[in-house]
Amino acid sequence: MAEPPVFQRLALIGVGLIGSSIARIARREGIAAEIVGADASPAARADIEELKLCDRLYADAAKAVDGADLVIICTPLGAYAEIGPAIQKRLEPGAILSDVGSVKQAVIRDLAPTVPDGVHFIPGHPIAGTEHSGPKAGFAELFQGRWCILTPSPGTDEAAVERLAALWRRAGSMVELMEPAHHDQVLAITSHLPHLIAYTIVGTAFGLEESTRREVIKFSASGFRDFTRIAASDPIMWRDIFLNNREAVLEMLGRFTEDLTALQRAIRWGEGEKLQDLFTRTRAIRRSIIEAKQA
Amino acid sequence: MAEPPVFQRLALIGVGLIGSSIARIARREGIAAEIVGADASPAARADIEELKLCDRLYADAAKAVDGADLVIICTPLGAYAEIGPAIQKRLEPGAILSDVGSVKQAVIRDLAPTVPDGVHFIPGHPIAGTEHSGPKAGFAELFQGRWCILTPSPGTDEAAVERLAALWRRAGSMVELMEPAHHDQVLAITSHLPHLIAYTIVGTAFGLEESTRREVIKFSASGFRDFTRIAASDPIMWRDIFLNNREAVLEMLGRFTEDLTALQRAIRWGEGEKLQDLFTRTRAIRRSIIEAKQA
Repeated sequence: MAEPPVFQRLALIGVGLIGSSIARIARREGIAAEIVGADASPAARADIEELKLCDRLYADAAKAVDGADLVIICTPLGAYAEIGPAIQKRLEPGAILSDVGSVKQAVIRDLAPTVPDGVHFIPGHPIAGTEHSGPKAGFAELFQGRWCILTPSPGTDEAAVERLAALWRRAGSMVELMEPAHHDQVLAITSHLPHLIAYTIVGTAFGLEESTRREVIKFSASGFRDFTRIAASDPIMWRDIFLNNREAVLEMLGRFTEDLTALQRAIRWGEGEKLQDLFTRTRAIRRSIIEAKQA
Repeated sequence: MAEPPVFQRLALIGVGLIGSSIARIARREGIAAEIVGADASPAARADIEELKLCDRLYADAAKAVDGADLVIICTPLGAYAEIGPAIQKRLEPGAILSDVGSVKQAVIRDLAPTVPDGVHFIPGHPIAGTEHSGPKAGFAELFQGRWCILTPSPGTDEAAVERLAALWRRAGSMVELMEPAHHDQVLAITSHLPHLIAYTIVGTAFGLEESTRREVIKFSASGFRDFTRIAASDPIMWRDIFLNNREAVLEMLGRFTEDLTALQRAIRWGEGEKLQDLFTRTRAIRRSIIEAKQA
């Protein structure tokens, strides 16, 4: 027997890579009796219609949230400041308002003041994604075996948190509660800084003269191509992440630059032992990740 | 009908990830009538024996090259300075001496003076590898669809270059001839700098306080784990690469640091357009790599 729907009406504001993956899972698992979508992009809406991802689809976020008992914002962070006030009056009492944004303090800063009394605001962040974007890029297995972090403020209704967590667990995720500031710091080092560095080095390579640039592509199998995959991630989404997690990213970047300068000096002075020591330590870290089944 | 062997006796000095992959291909393709190996590590030799990768196996490089018409050095670069003089007097006239090292100018500097007249010295570099090392990590498909760069000096016997190129083509590789200095510059940006950066950021993450460090592993699926894979590459091999391609690595590192500083400034001042512009350009580069079938 299938489990009964956890939600009567799920509204997804933004139906791109993440939103469409949630829609696919909600459908497959029967998590929501009805799936309503909103997407500002006509091209995305055409794809969503074609893929039959939603029962109803709107351009306008406000229309989609009417009568929904779960609303998940799945747009780039830069759109939140507009979405909050737009949906404010249409949110049903008792509904859960969540999101999937990669930064949590800024989300709370932008959205919390707009959330009406009686609506449960539970920011979320599934640690999953690919370098592709748009409704066609989503798939139901995206969250399988991955973590989903929820950052409710103290005093949030526990039953509501549990209902939202149930959705993520049925998507195959492990759920963890975390302080928003701590989330932003951990993600700055595990996700935001790696992306920033990948974007930078790919940009550096393409600042080289034309002849070298062609060879960079040809011989990219030697390390570079892993960076190009990361640096192919959605430009607007990532612009918004850096603008919204500025402090934590700059802090981690400062540490990284110090460490890089120390290595640079070791190379210049031929200090092989320092290099070998670090490289041996980092190899051990890879093993921890394989053991944690996140490789 | 199988093609006849290209070589009578192939000597592999160092039978790790790359050397053992060459041994597997040489066996599968019947490229060499006899495969002789040398490895200084007793543990590696035990694995090589167990896997039956070589017809004869020695600890000593000099013994392995006796009577070989192709000798390929597959050790970390730091061992070359010792191997050159050690094998010098045992190299047969007419034999080809090659290698698979990731730096070419330093290899030529160290080995060329030791190569006897009548031996064809053709430095090589297959652009392939994994983060694993040792004879057990090798596999015959490692070079399939990848480039192999050869950097013979002007005047090298063309027939000898062609015989070596034939080996690599039978391993599934595309062969390209290149100036050693240009090789070192291209690899500095496509391979050496990406590895240096990956080693650095993994080190930075592990300089964080213990509680954050555990979470870095847990939530590594968000970008970080790709870096940990690269930063799990062989420590000694990579120490030697940085020490031997110092100038080109420091030059590329300088460019990278400038670009990173510019991005850091854009984040600090909230210059979203600059970020989005770069991120849009780098996404296009990924497409070029996919089109070049090197993704």
